[in-house]
Amino acid sequence: MKVKAYAAFHKSEDLKPFEYEAKDLEADFIDVEISHCGICHSDIHLLDDALGITKFPYVPGHEIVGKITAAGDAVKNLKVGDRIGVGWQSGSCHACEYCVSGNENCCAGMQSTCVSQFGGYGSHFRCDYRFAVKIPEGLSSDKAAPLMCGGVTVYQPLRYYNVTPNQKVAVVGIGGLGHLAVQFAAAFGCEVTAISTSETKRAEAKELGAEHFVDSSSKNAFSKLANNFDVILNTVSSDLPLQEYFTALKPMGKLIMIGLGSSNVTVPAPALVLGQRTVGGSWIGSPSMIDEMLNFSARKKVNVKTENFAMADVNKGIKSVRENKVRYRAVLVN
Amino acid sequence: MKVKAYAAFHKSEDLKPFEYEAKDLEADFIDVEISHCGICHSDIHLLDDALGITKFPYVPGHEIVGKITAAGDAVKNLKVGDRIGVGWQSGSCHACEYCVSGNENCCAGMQSTCVSQFGGYGSHFRCDYRFAVKIPEGLSSDKAAPLMCGGVTVYQPLRYYNVTPNQKVAVVGIGGLGHLAVQFAAAFGCEVTAISTSETKRAEAKELGAEHFVDSSSKNAFSKLANNFDVILNTVSSDLPLQEYFTALKPMGKLIMIGLGSSNVTVPAPALVLGQRTVGGSWIGSPSMIDEMLNFSARKKVNVKTENFAMADVNKGIKSVRENKVRYRAVLVN
Repeated sequence: MKVKAYAAFHKSEDLKPFEYEAKDLEADFIDVEISHCGICHSDIHLLDDALGITKFPYVPGHEIVGKITAAGDAVKNLKVGDRIGVGWQSGSCHACEYCVSGNENCCAGMQSTCVSQFGGYGSHFRCDYRFAVKIPEGLSSDKAAPLMCGGVTVYQPLRYYNVTPNQKVAVVGIGGLGHLAVQFAAAFGCEVTAISTSETKRAEAKELGAEHFVDSSSKNAFSKLANNFDVILNTVSSDLPLQEYFTALKPMGKLIMIGLGSSNVTVPAPALVLGQRTVGGSWIGSPSMIDEMLNFSARKKVNVKTENFAMADVNKGIKSVRENKVRYRAVLVN
Repeated sequence: MKVKAYAAFHKSEDLKPFEYEAKDLEADFIDVEISHCGICHSDIHLLDDALGITKFPYVPGHEIVGKITAAGDAVKNLKVGDRIGVGWQSGSCHACEYCVSGNENCCAGMQSTCVSQFGGYGSHFRCDYRFAVKIPEGLSSDKAAPLMCGGVTVYQPLRYYNVTPNQKVAVVGIGGLGHLAVQFAAAFGCEVTAISTSETKRAEAKELGAEHFVDSSSKNAFSKLANNFDVILNTVSSDLPLQEYFTALKPMGKLIMIGLGSSNVTVPAPALVLGQRTVGGSWIGSPSMIDEMLNFSARKKVNVKTENFAMADVNKGIKSVRENKVRYRAVLVN
């Protein structure tokens, strides 16, 4: 299969048209004609080789939605014509304890959609069908795309850390991830507080379901919040004063990290031990969790706020995301 | 009630005989004639005013076992003559969300047995009956005493963090707490690894139920342990290279802290997030958890290794604990 894609040939450079021949269609593989692909911040980190793992030419894109155009002999549950999505992960070993227990996102043999191979900024994608998830009818493709990575990244921690409807949940950062986290937590029945450095997000956060808003840039914002939250979900990828955030946790509270904003996470031992608090990491989600999250999003009419760009305008889209101009998630459309 | 106790009048000094009159026997209170009281490291930290909260004269002791000699009018479930134990906590507000949900150990109004009042190094103790737990028949009083604080301190994290029988559990530090943690985890069905700086603990750790032993003082001890444990329970109160320990956790693994060895806990963000790992604190346990732990200990014949000292030899006992000569838990006997 010939794929017309967009690739960067050097670190941080603009993407250019790039054609490649996909590897063989194995028995477990499907071909996808891409209709939409989200632009995730991780695409840009990889473009900038921020993790030192990027291979060039580099085709970004790991929030893929499209139709299946071919399926290998071993493919089950999916067929040509189905509308599916693929997220950050597009392969795993299928044999380790994590894979067989439905925690494929923790498999050491993880294949990443745009690290292990060319990603979704293009016409087609070929991958293991077990990482393609059907998009429910009620969800449009441009809204589904950002859910494939951004959505599950904030849905998974709420489920993995057993967030319950009685809890007070703070969502730190009201951007692409945070605006989904607020809606998920509110739909779980939680009392949600949106925490943002931008006062301009107040009204919107309330519309999304937050009952409270805290402008974290205001002086002493945290002095009133001591022992206040059962869960703090940190969606911000930059370095934050976590010690301060940690004091805002109630006893038995959980601070959940989903980003790699700093190389270390430091919290005060007395608050950790004497308050029986937790710091937990969360990382994308398994195909079954993505499936659950998509259906939940459709059923609860989660409002995925997107700004769409034509695939050919990919560099314009990337620029907008870089400049934080997109509210809240950019999507490329073929 | 007149109490003959042992008190320190100044920081780090030897204890001396000290008599005091207990406050009134309130309706919810019981009097306990102390037969045994464990010497916990926390007693010594308080004696040294390491936390800056000690009031002198200071009567240590928060692993109390004895018989009820009087009971206020509102006391339920317990009666004069019952053999009971009292641990670190001897009071709470009984009204907050933590108290009413059986998590009294997280109550902000916690009364500490030898901080908020005179402790158990003496003849008698008077306290809220709701923090006195009946000692099961199969458990001798000198074995029950160290369980009241040391025991529940390591039992609680195994239960709170949902340790399951399939899991690989590492217990770091094979001392007073660790030798109980090894036994509890083994009795839960777990595959237990004892980690100690002392090769001399190897045989004993195996006897207690550990299937594996790691001498953490040997070079590269951790290089072979990467991605190895579901749970690491750190019972050591000194500062440890937690980053190294953290790499020994499997994906979805949990590092549990029960001590205040350092003021901060720092772990690497990539291992936390990408491996969906957790750092959790745990802090003593509620009366109902103590009750469960005592009954479990009796039923499973947990071997509480104690060295007994006459109450009058309290300074000798403290010296032995200070010098790490006690294997594994010192108990004062009246």
